[in-house]
Amino acid sequence: MQIKTDYNTAIKRKYPEQVVIAITKDKSGKFNPITIGWAMITSHYPPMMAISVGLQRYSLEVIRYSKEFVISFPSSIMDKEALFYGTKSGRDIDKFAECKINTEPAHKIDCIILSDAVANFECKLESELKTGDHIIFTGRVVSSHINEDNSLERLYILETGYKMGKFVKSYNNQ
Amino acid sequence: MQIKTDYNTAIKRKYPEQVVIAITKDKSGKFNPITIGWAMITSHYPPMMAISVGLQRYSLEVIRYSKEFVISFPSSIMDKEALFYGTKSGRDIDKFAECKINTEPAHKIDCIILSDAVANFECKLESELKTGDHIIFTGRVVSSHINEDNSLERLYILETGYKMGKFVKSYNNQ
Repeated sequence: MQIKTDYNTAIKRKYPEQVVIAITKDKSGKFNPITIGWAMITSHYPPMMAISVGLQRYSLEVIRYSKEFVISFPSSIMDKEALFYGTKSGRDIDKFAECKINTEPAHKIDCIILSDAVANFECKLESELKTGDHIIFTGRVVSSHINEDNSLERLYILETGYKMGKFVKSYNNQ
Repeated sequence: MQIKTDYNTAIKRKYPEQVVIAITKDKSGKFNPITIGWAMITSHYPPMMAISVGLQRYSLEVIRYSKEFVISFPSSIMDKEALFYGTKSGRDIDKFAECKINTEPAHKIDCIILSDAVANFECKLESELKTGDHIIFTGRVVSSHINEDNSLERLYILETGYKMGKFVKSYNNQ
């Protein structure tokens, strides 16, 4: 049975929530990562993804400038980096310099991909849509990469307070 | 280290993926549920959510007609219903009649909520954006509900082939 409640209480039931790290290159040539929980796939043909970026975030102006970005699915061991990239602003610091991570050049866009991620998707910006205090950016995937290690699991936010970890699968009826 | 691959291979690394059930009321007065993996929150103030609906789906025309919908977070025991609602079309059948589920009236929109879900969010349609072979619909949350049973977990698609189950949390560094 359902109980009516306020939105802020109800939305806590969303967890666990998967995260992505979106990476862009700013005007000065600095690569800037941002950790995002609000992301989804949005087309099969052509393959497209959507991310929702806060109006105040530095990444918003960088995506509008560069018109391309990488969406990386961090692996469960990348919790410290995901937390750092999600809570600091690239307007003030060089996130990759302050919190180092293994990277490789992207193939089709002028960006980098994350070596220890589960997968990386290079995207060309297609459109944007304002939704309240965020902007939805949609991108067409132009190149895809996976980790050579198949056993890696994605990183999830397990509960409020950025408690992160991985998913242990519990199948129904098995 | 990353290996370049085709998109269809790489995107399989997305799992586990959370699912939602979106519910709308069609012209004939029939409530129609659709299970969707491509959904995200997209604003804090006002609270908003986005869902991505295939161009061929019956729900697309129903959302455009009714201009409102419920987004329900199914609990892990609702796997059979989620599979049925995600693989049949409401154009041909009455999904709720053929695959029964406990429901309650929504409060602020002319729709129903799912009694055994983890949470339900009543949404007013705000905007839409075409992205490849899908339409992103965004909705403003006007009423929120949670299950009185706090111990319920959300339902996830664990791997390809609609294998569903729940999430067992594995915390890092604990």
